[in-house]
Amino acid sequence: MRPIHWKSGETINFIGYLKVFKMLITPGKLLAQINSPADLKKLDQAQLVQLCEELRHFIIDNVSVYGGHFGASLGVVELTVALHYVLNTPYDQLVWDVGHQAYGHKILTGRRDVFHSNRVYQGISGFPKRKESEYDTFGVGHSSTSVSAALGMAFASKNLGIQDKQHVAVIGDGALTGGMAFEGLNHAGVSDTNLLIILNDNCMSIDPNVGALKDYLTDITTSKTYNRLKDDVWNLLGKLSSFGKSAQEIVSKIENGIKSTLLSQSNLFESLHLRYFGPVDGHDVDHLVAVLNDLKKIKGPKILHCITTKGKGYAPAEKGNATTWHSPGTFDKITGEIHKKVYDKPQPPKYQDVFGHTLVELAKTNNKIIGITPAMPSGSSMNIMMKEMPDRAIDVGIAEQHAVTFSAGLATQGLVPFCNIYSSFMQRAYDQVIHDVCIQNLPVNFCLDRAGFAGSDGPTHHGAYDLAYFRCLPNMIVAAPMNEQELRNLMFTAQLPRNGNAFSIRYPRGQGVMTNWKTPFEKIEIGKGRKIKDGEELAILTIGHIGNYAVDVCAKFAKQGMDIAHYDMRFVKPLDEKLLHQIFSKFKKIVTVEDGCVQGGFGSAVLEFMADHNYRAEIKRLGIPDGVIEHGEQIELHKECGFDPDGIARAIISMLEPSKAIV
Amino acid sequence: MRPIHWKSGETINFIGYLKVFKMLITPGKLLAQINSPADLKKLDQAQLVQLCEELRHFIIDNVSVYGGHFGASLGVVELTVALHYVLNTPYDQLVWDVGHQAYGHKILTGRRDVFHSNRVYQGISGFPKRKESEYDTFGVGHSSTSVSAALGMAFASKNLGIQDKQHVAVIGDGALTGGMAFEGLNHAGVSDTNLLIILNDNCMSIDPNVGALKDYLTDITTSKTYNRLKDDVWNLLGKLSSFGKSAQEIVSKIENGIKSTLLSQSNLFESLHLRYFGPVDGHDVDHLVAVLNDLKKIKGPKILHCITTKGKGYAPAEKGNATTWHSPGTFDKITGEIHKKVYDKPQPPKYQDVFGHTLVELAKTNNKIIGITPAMPSGSSMNIMMKEMPDRAIDVGIAEQHAVTFSAGLATQGLVPFCNIYSSFMQRAYDQVIHDVCIQNLPVNFCLDRAGFAGSDGPTHHGAYDLAYFRCLPNMIVAAPMNEQELRNLMFTAQLPRNGNAFSIRYPRGQGVMTNWKTPFEKIEIGKGRKIKDGEELAILTIGHIGNYAVDVCAKFAKQGMDIAHYDMRFVKPLDEKLLHQIFSKFKKIVTVEDGCVQGGFGSAVLEFMADHNYRAEIKRLGIPDGVIEHGEQIELHKECGFDPDGIARAIISMLEPSKAIV
Repeated sequence: MRPIHWKSGETINFIGYLKVFKMLITPGKLLAQINSPADLKKLDQAQLVQLCEELRHFIIDNVSVYGGHFGASLGVVELTVALHYVLNTPYDQLVWDVGHQAYGHKILTGRRDVFHSNRVYQGISGFPKRKESEYDTFGVGHSSTSVSAALGMAFASKNLGIQDKQHVAVIGDGALTGGMAFEGLNHAGVSDTNLLIILNDNCMSIDPNVGALKDYLTDITTSKTYNRLKDDVWNLLGKLSSFGKSAQEIVSKIENGIKSTLLSQSNLFESLHLRYFGPVDGHDVDHLVAVLNDLKKIKGPKILHCITTKGKGYAPAEKGNATTWHSPGTFDKITGEIHKKVYDKPQPPKYQDVFGHTLVELAKTNNKIIGITPAMPSGSSMNIMMKEMPDRAIDVGIAEQHAVTFSAGLATQGLVPFCNIYSSFMQRAYDQVIHDVCIQNLPVNFCLDRAGFAGSDGPTHHGAYDLAYFRCLPNMIVAAPMNEQELRNLMFTAQLPRNGNAFSIRYPRGQGVMTNWKTPFEKIEIGKGRKIKDGEELAILTIGHIGNYAVDVCAKFAKQGMDIAHYDMRFVKPLDEKLLHQIFSKFKKIVTVEDGCVQGGFGSAVLEFMADHNYRAEIKRLGIPDGVIEHGEQIELHKECGFDPDGIARAIISMLEPSKAIV
Repeated sequence: MRPIHWKSGETINFIGYLKVFKMLITPGKLLAQINSPADLKKLDQAQLVQLCEELRHFIIDNVSVYGGHFGASLGVVELTVALHYVLNTPYDQLVWDVGHQAYGHKILTGRRDVFHSNRVYQGISGFPKRKESEYDTFGVGHSSTSVSAALGMAFASKNLGIQDKQHVAVIGDGALTGGMAFEGLNHAGVSDTNLLIILNDNCMSIDPNVGALKDYLTDITTSKTYNRLKDDVWNLLGKLSSFGKSAQEIVSKIENGIKSTLLSQSNLFESLHLRYFGPVDGHDVDHLVAVLNDLKKIKGPKILHCITTKGKGYAPAEKGNATTWHSPGTFDKITGEIHKKVYDKPQPPKYQDVFGHTLVELAKTNNKIIGITPAMPSGSSMNIMMKEMPDRAIDVGIAEQHAVTFSAGLATQGLVPFCNIYSSFMQRAYDQVIHDVCIQNLPVNFCLDRAGFAGSDGPTHHGAYDLAYFRCLPNMIVAAPMNEQELRNLMFTAQLPRNGNAFSIRYPRGQGVMTNWKTPFEKIEIGKGRKIKDGEELAILTIGHIGNYAVDVCAKFAKQGMDIAHYDMRFVKPLDEKLLHQIFSKFKKIVTVEDGCVQGGFGSAVLEFMADHNYRAEIKRLGIPDGVIEHGEQIELHKECGFDPDGIARAIISMLEPSKAIV
């Protein structure tokens, strides 16, 4: 067994992985020798092209069989090889923004033989992760953090008197639109630190990148602008010298002005005191090695503009739809055909598609509805409306903060915004929700996709906290549908005129439960829960989709003659106090279930009701416990956290028949 | 009584204000006639200079007597007059960023005669506020929101087919460093909306503005750069034409290139597709009127760069320390002497100063400590360390997100960051706390100043939610000191080496309780509360400074022979479970008190403990109720919310002797 370069004291058991997961993919001849960047450095530079080829094929082989993110990692194969060839990692600090593109990095840094466990429960993470490897200097998943993190590292080195350490952030052009990246650049420019920012410019986020910055990057990349002008003006100044004294005077008079302006102002990054280099071809590994070696010698904050192609080297991805190939699932690597699951009976839709189609349906009758997504058109299914009603559905870029306040601005003018942001990304717009929406009591609608466990994306993407962090806010309605019909009716209700109040609707990643989901719209009374099943011994109170587990659990207990009640509360805020009075009057044993953190969440709201109204009952709260839950299928994680159907059943048994409880 | 231009349906009773507050300030002759912008428009343009003079003096008179923000509003007197003279407000939408500068706006829009109630309990707000006036199109307080809000309004007009409406955001150069402003600009540039951004450039935030952008703005303002170059190159191209065919060819060959580059690239804003105008003198009201009239005719997103001086027109502010004059308190307007409160006995220090001095004290013995503030050096007292240890205390600009992730980067390198962010501003870095600190389990220290009610700044600045929004996060320690000694010891504890865990310490605005506060350091066991006073009948559990109220309450009850216990829990997370077991074993009646929201906060944590351990007790939670609490002195707001000493006493009486309770 090769030595694995993990940090000491780590508990991850890779031998365990190897037993569980079979490695079916054979690396190429050179790649097979690379167990760490030290091995990479033993290669001749002339061999790097072949290594890139092998690395690319290893990624294609793996993703085609096991799934995962795809286009982004193919786009940075050469950059990854060049960086680890030139840098002294892990001493040098390399930070990948977002991390979709870090597969090559993982494979070159000791995780080749476990790479097939990528994104699988108890396997390696799909993102860089400090716990996993000392080469992963900073955990990522959300966008636009790399400049700040790498700048912190560079500042630390400066402060500690370390001069030879390199600090590199690799950030995409999409991630650069996130406001915090700009905050980092603004600080970096005056920081006097040894920081290299590599702009991985492929004109893409997950969906095509949008915004003025994208145009600007295209602009400075094409020949009509910065680079050509630089040459032209230099040539002009040279030629003018031969025109005699008068021209020479003009030249000398303005030369400094032009030079300084060209260098310090005609480039956005130079404006921010970042020395700008490039653009360079991000697929020319030889040139990248040369450039990176040069840049190592240049102190201070600097930016290297690399032009890359998402999906590079795999024709179907390179020529096809880049969004599709961002994370295609498994596919036939020869034909490029993406495997589709085949079912023998009709399947319920994904919640996101119910959202997408329902929004268009509502928007057709309510012309005030506007859809807003921060760079997640395909992930949220807002692309359905963007296609059908391009003037009324907007992708504002990776800019959650802006998305929320922009929505608030729309609401002041009487429009009805539906701002769709994944639960974990909504964290980034928390202040805007409070300051611009709730305090002003503006009727903005928030749809939080990926609420609860995100699945294989893992902890950075789990929507674990939204019930807790939204429930404490004033003028905020917090709702979660148990199925497709409920989602549709909540959306229908949210677009009806109301006097203030933000309205948040959270739903999970993945499928609902109804094959015939295009139900007619019905208004739901805000704050009104519903009794799913009557019972006698104990009541289960659920919120959202997870309530379907309780339906199964109740049915199983019923077969055993145990009569468990089930209430779908629908709203965490306002709580259905009338219903709760009925429940607490009848039941002395209550289980709450939520796909969210148990600290401060739905169950705590029920406890608050109980305390405020002086009821006495035994309450067990099931949900995400206090800790970081790793990646895996949703059902695997529910099981781990004890609120899968078996877990709920165990909790009930422990309350009703403590002697039978299995601890 | 003059007609007041309020929105219909508002409950604010300004007649009531006039009864309560006496107006001592007499407006000048012209200003006395301006009850709305309609009156302003009746003036000849030639009279505007005098009106500006009168408005400036009215502000000086008011702030010198009643206090408030000062320098910012003086800096935009001419801009304010010009905007309301040219625009058709409130039909046209005018958004002020942050809002410190909006006093002139308030005075010109019907609030002149109530302006002396500014920032006073039940008086008008120190910030624009939608509830207060239809001229206040968007409530502000936090920075960098105006571009997004105004863009939302402009997009709405476009969508509604309204072509004649103007949408103007006035944003300072400091606020422009906040990432969300950049997100807004990036979207604005491609939005095809009628948006005018006015950059109010005075090189200041509250403290001097920092970062690369500031340098850039200075750069394009000074003659050596953009504007002069533009002229020079134009001249050059003209003169070259006389050099014959060869030169003319060169000229024609590069002219388009230079032109397009100069206009579209040599300016950061033009890079983002925003037409750039300026810089103009922000104190030349005539020119501003002319420029704004011109800009009204130019469609599409555009930016006007105005150079202003904070404190303009009041010599002590203009020449003195701009930070001091940001919000000087009351002062003698003739001498410029700022009034200092005189006390007949020594006063306890402000918590912020205890933080500032203690951080330096700790940093002297622990060379790994780094202080980080996002643009609040004076507000947080980080300026003490910045002065004494300039290499180890950093102002990163208005950039809370960056501040947190930068701190995380420092922590990865073994440094010990103390990142000081006001409680309400921490909302803006919520995702970074979760994603970059807690999930990675990095030992970053957060000091949350202004936790609880911020006082006269009002709801945008109240630190109401931090206990709830931090307590639900994994790997997070949540602590609050009851006094200066506790703050020092918590800080001492936080800088000791530990294995992971973020450590947050929240404390309020204003003074502590100890005149001799420079106590020796003692380590506090993490998660350890303390019993302040034993008792029999009922226990009060408090967190933080508000616990001092409980001390008073217990003393008063003791005089009446009622023996109330009091515990200062110190930590909301981890809770002191050992202490809580003792408390719940002994007491059946418990009151929790916190200066934070009752939904999901400290009291809810106590409820969760009770439920998880199957205790039964009557618990009353006192804290900030579910709603927007307006501005006022802290004690006034505590009273309003029922947790001032009288409120706590009433709660206890209602539990112990329900018949005596006053509802």
